[in-house]
Amino acid sequence: MEDEKTFEKLEPIRVKALDDILGIPFKVLDDGFVRVVDYLGSDESIVQAARVSYGKGTKQISQDRGLIRYLLRHRHTTPFEMCEIKLHIRIPMDAWRQWIRHRTANVNEYSTRYSLAIESAQTTNSDQWRMQATDNKQGSSGLFDTELGKEMTEDERFLHEKSREIYNKRVEQGVAREQARKDLPLSTYTEAYWKIDLHNLLHFLELRMEGNAQLEIREYANTIGREIVKRWAPIAWEAFEEYALNSKEFSGFELELISLLANGKGDEAKSKAADYGWISYKDDKLKFNMERWEFENKMNDLEIQIPW
Amino acid sequence: MEDEKTFEKLEPIRVKALDDILGIPFKVLDDGFVRVVDYLGSDESIVQAARVSYGKGTKQISQDRGLIRYLLRHRHTTPFEMCEIKLHIRIPMDAWRQWIRHRTANVNEYSTRYSLAIESAQTTNSDQWRMQATDNKQGSSGLFDTELGKEMTEDERFLHEKSREIYNKRVEQGVAREQARKDLPLSTYTEAYWKIDLHNLLHFLELRMEGNAQLEIREYANTIGREIVKRWAPIAWEAFEEYALNSKEFSGFELELISLLANGKGDEAKSKAADYGWISYKDDKLKFNMERWEFENKMNDLEIQIPW
Amino acid sequence: MEDEKTFEKLEPIRVKALDDILGIPFKVLDDGFVRVVDYLGSDESIVQAARVSYGKGTKQISQDRGLIRYLLRHRHTTPFEMCEIKLHIRIPMDAWRQWIRHRTANVNEYSTRYSLAIESAQTTNSDQWRMQATDNKQGSSGLFDTELGKEMTEDERFLHEKSREIYNKRVEQGVAREQARKDLPLSTYTEAYWKIDLHNLLHFLELRMEGNAQLEIREYANTIGREIVKRWAPIAWEAFEEYALNSKEFSGFELELISLLANGKGDEAKSKAADYGWISYKDDKLKFNMERWEFENKMNDLEIQIPW
Amino acid sequence: MEDEKTFEKLEPIRVKALDDILGIPFKVLDDGFVRVVDYLGSDESIVQAARVSYGKGTKQISQDRGLIRYLLRHRHTTPFEMCEIKLHIRIPMDAWRQWIRHRTANVNEYSTRYSLAIESAQTTNSDQWRMQATDNKQGSSGLFDTELGKEMTEDERFLHEKSREIYNKRVEQGVAREQARKDLPLSTYTEAYWKIDLHNLLHFLELRMEGNAQLEIREYANTIGREIVKRWAPIAWEAFEEYALNSKEFSGFELELISLLANGKGDEAKSKAADYGWISYKDDKLKFNMERWEFENKMNDLEIQIPW
Repeated sequence: MEDEKTFEKLEPIRVKALDDILGIPFKVLDDGFVRVVDYLGSDESIVQAARVSYGKGTKQISQDRGLIRYLLRHRHTTPFEMCEIKLHIRIPMDAWRQWIRHRTANVNEYSTRYSLAIESAQTTNSDQWRMQATDNKQGSSGLFDTELGKEMTEDERFLHEKSREIYNKRVEQGVAREQARKDLPLSTYTEAYWKIDLHNLLHFLELRMEGNAQLEIREYANTIGREIVKRWAPIAWEAFEEYALNSKEFSGFELELISLLANGKGDEAKSKAADYGWISYKDDKLKFNMERWEFENKMNDLEIQIPW
Repeated sequence: MEDEKTFEKLEPIRVKALDDILGIPFKVLDDGFVRVVDYLGSDESIVQAARVSYGKGTKQISQDRGLIRYLLRHRHTTPFEMCEIKLHIRIPMDAWRQWIRHRTANVNEYSTRYSLAIESAQTTNSDQWRMQATDNKQGSSGLFDTELGKEMTEDERFLHEKSREIYNKRVEQGVAREQARKDLPLSTYTEAYWKIDLHNLLHFLELRMEGNAQLEIREYANTIGREIVKRWAPIAWEAFEEYALNSKEFSGFELELISLLANGKGDEAKSKAADYGWISYKDDKLKFNMERWEFENKMNDLEIQIPW
Repeated sequence: MEDEKTFEKLEPIRVKALDDILGIPFKVLDDGFVRVVDYLGSDESIVQAARVSYGKGTKQISQDRGLIRYLLRHRHTTPFEMCEIKLHIRIPMDAWRQWIRHRTANVNEYSTRYSLAIESAQTTNSDQWRMQATDNKQGSSGLFDTELGKEMTEDERFLHEKSREIYNKRVEQGVAREQARKDLPLSTYTEAYWKIDLHNLLHFLELRMEGNAQLEIREYANTIGREIVKRWAPIAWEAFEEYALNSKEFSGFELELISLLANGKGDEAKSKAADYGWISYKDDKLKFNMERWEFENKMNDLEIQIPW
Repeated sequence: MEDEKTFEKLEPIRVKALDDILGIPFKVLDDGFVRVVDYLGSDESIVQAARVSYGKGTKQISQDRGLIRYLLRHRHTTPFEMCEIKLHIRIPMDAWRQWIRHRTANVNEYSTRYSLAIESAQTTNSDQWRMQATDNKQGSSGLFDTELGKEMTEDERFLHEKSREIYNKRVEQGVAREQARKDLPLSTYTEAYWKIDLHNLLHFLELRMEGNAQLEIREYANTIGREIVKRWAPIAWEAFEEYALNSKEFSGFELELISLLANGKGDEAKSKAADYGWISYKDDKLKFNMERWEFENKMNDLEIQIPW
């Protein structure tokens, strides 16, 4: 541990690339945005915090990168909690409903009890209507042709107008704002200050940048990740891409199969898979098995041949 | 500390009054409910946990009551965290948006990405339309006459029908559920399992049973408090009423004034209040001061005469 | 809500009084300290966050003070969460064991698995040995005379030396640090980075600046409060003193009694207290009753006469 | 969603295998234990909670297993939070210091301010002294021979006796318990009630059952996992073993290499690794590289040949 006498006056840790964009909104969706209000810490703070644990002083940059990668890879998450960021977000309430499920953040949301609701709802262009995915009960897949889309957009416009009209009428007649708002569409925009530490932010991004996340929230997550975190803590961001975004996990059983496949023992792998319950037939057709199907997808990504 | 050898096989702590209503919904609003799914602990568990801290064994019931009251009065909150309850709730999304801001709970909400939205939105009878409060920017005060209310209810019905019609049309045309839902009204019902410990539940109730809380969420809070917690942990509930619901807090300065007023020194109190900045006049009229006004309200409740 | 186009480039919010002492340790106990490593936000950020909720722009300083006091008085805690501070602390493990019970903070502690234990344990001067309180099972009250104190300090010195000697011997012989440390005294100093938001910090201070908190942790809390928070957010600090440190809470029943006492109805108050179970005699002596005793203490502070 | 009218009276979900051991201590270390005080939920509750999200009723057991495995594999953690367990633990303060870093639990610890410290400290047999690991700065590796161990155990006994003697003397002389305890060894036993939900418990177990966790806490974690969770939620436990304990994660770059190695392209893999900075020589000797070394270990486990 450093000797107390050696403590020197500190300067706040600032990151020029982030200071340069402080307050400037990144547009998301048709009328949303994300902007950085302020922040605390940087890549350097992660290292600083880890070194308190290790009882060590500062080292060179090249070692900092190795340390940050080590910490992220081994889920030593507490040093990442030493960085904090405060964002100002404008987002449809529908996406905000998902967002707010992340409990480890501080939030001040625009109050439609206190003030009039923001006069904007997320609109959908005629070429943006998404079809229900058939292989994923909670996803979308493919777009409608714009002919049909035009009609849908027209319905949307009608509904937005009507609900705003009725909201305004209620307010004018003196209905309490807390009650007048009750029938606003979920697509109505809201705003919030949202403050979170880097560890929990990366966890949020890991879940919300993922392909299965809903498009709307994914666009916010991508903006936060690629426009903001990347500027703020570039080394942590690079490690996050490598060890979280681009990584894959294999179960104990999957590892056994990979070991066999990499050693040319496809038959043995197939027989193991059968014993494990992955392989059964109905009318000579391999029956669907979710765990096997997920494994196959991973093998396809690795270009490893599947032996059944 | 009890000797290890003395540990005996335990039975789960069950509360008959709560077991009797397990799973049975209490109706709230026009189409909502709250029901208890399961729970852990009771008044007895609070005492048990406190006594681990104190290194003591079990005592008699009369002492239990005193201990629970002591713990609650002095904000020794951890023993109350040793009780946990799981509720099933059906609630309009608008009220749920407020509810979910309480972060110290576990939540599983009905997914309108995965399933069709619940076909019900909170409706307002013609005699339930509330007027905007004039003295409280985020409150309501008074009701509209039913003549005007009827018209408002009619508008509401129209909007509910239209938005449901358009939602159904989207779903039928194959729009992804995650997108089709975007214009549902905030009044649409959702459901959730909500699990929370007793300390955090009481904190939730303190905020949401309060007169300033919005009527809708207040009705849920009242039901949870008076129908559920009261059955579950009657001693803790009684202490909560005494020390949280019915208590008042006085600031350092307010205490000085009360001391003077109770000793018949009204003039001195007035002079102090003036020095403190509470008393200033415009055209011979006492100007509004928020802090003074709140103090006056408290004095009125105590029937203590105000000396200015 | 402000129009998006009006968003201007922001500068980080800095507080000169705190920047001036960044990194400089405040000494606590014989060999401990607290120093600010960095922070985010200020009084201004509290106001800024509240105004997002209210959908309002910036106002004058005088209104800021009123708003902050209002927020703190009414437990609108979320705007205070928008400020964050990172401290570097050196503290005996014994006090740290209490400290760490506050869960809403981020922590990086010096690791005695990874590094050698800090070669310092909290020592007690001969005039600092405290006597067990008789009226409070978990407190201390009064000091030993230094004659006896000297002997105690001598025993302490012996124990510190012996345990350090044995620790060093183990390490030299090659015992794993994680095991060698097992018999270090609880008084051994540790260090940590501790990051917390202002709301949770004030809650920590409310509990730990209180007279019943153990002296050691109280000294840290006082230093953080009076040397750091007061510089960082002077308006919030002033409100905290007024509404938290110097305030008192009265239960529903206590309020009834105060109302009677302030209106000269002592007899009625006494009779109510008796009905409530506060007044019973044994051999003509008023029996001790905890709740009554606490009420009496509060009345004494207010110089209101007790009618029994 | 089920129709409200169909709600039936519920019975609490109980697990016979866990009810059978309620309150019975599992011994850990020389004088520690873990025992279940009470719990809420089971495998069935996980499924129940997930099905609220999906808006579905109950299905058969075989589907339950698939669902739980799916949820755990895809980190859908909220349904696991619907189960809660309360443990009573007796543990050396040294290990407790690590334990308590897990913030998402409720805790009531035995208070040595209020009561006398537990008269027991963890002792080390002469064959249990562990050597400092050379390849892991925070680990141990190998044991001392008992000859040297005997001497160490003798020193330990001496220190335990002396510190207890001085503690007792302080207490007898009337030193406040909160101060008397200050020099107790970290090995002193403490007790606590510890309540946590199943998701956070599994996270705790993943970190603390791991080979790098300190032996002492690992023994508690193993006991909780294999004796308690396995009885409580056997399907979740099996999935946890498969997808957490026995799984491995590969970074984006590691996946590229595995793909090459499994397709017999060792040379290309080596060349890629060199470009990536993993391969450099000093005096014809491959220099140590942490990331490469970790990859090699994983390849060795999979019996995949390393091409450099």
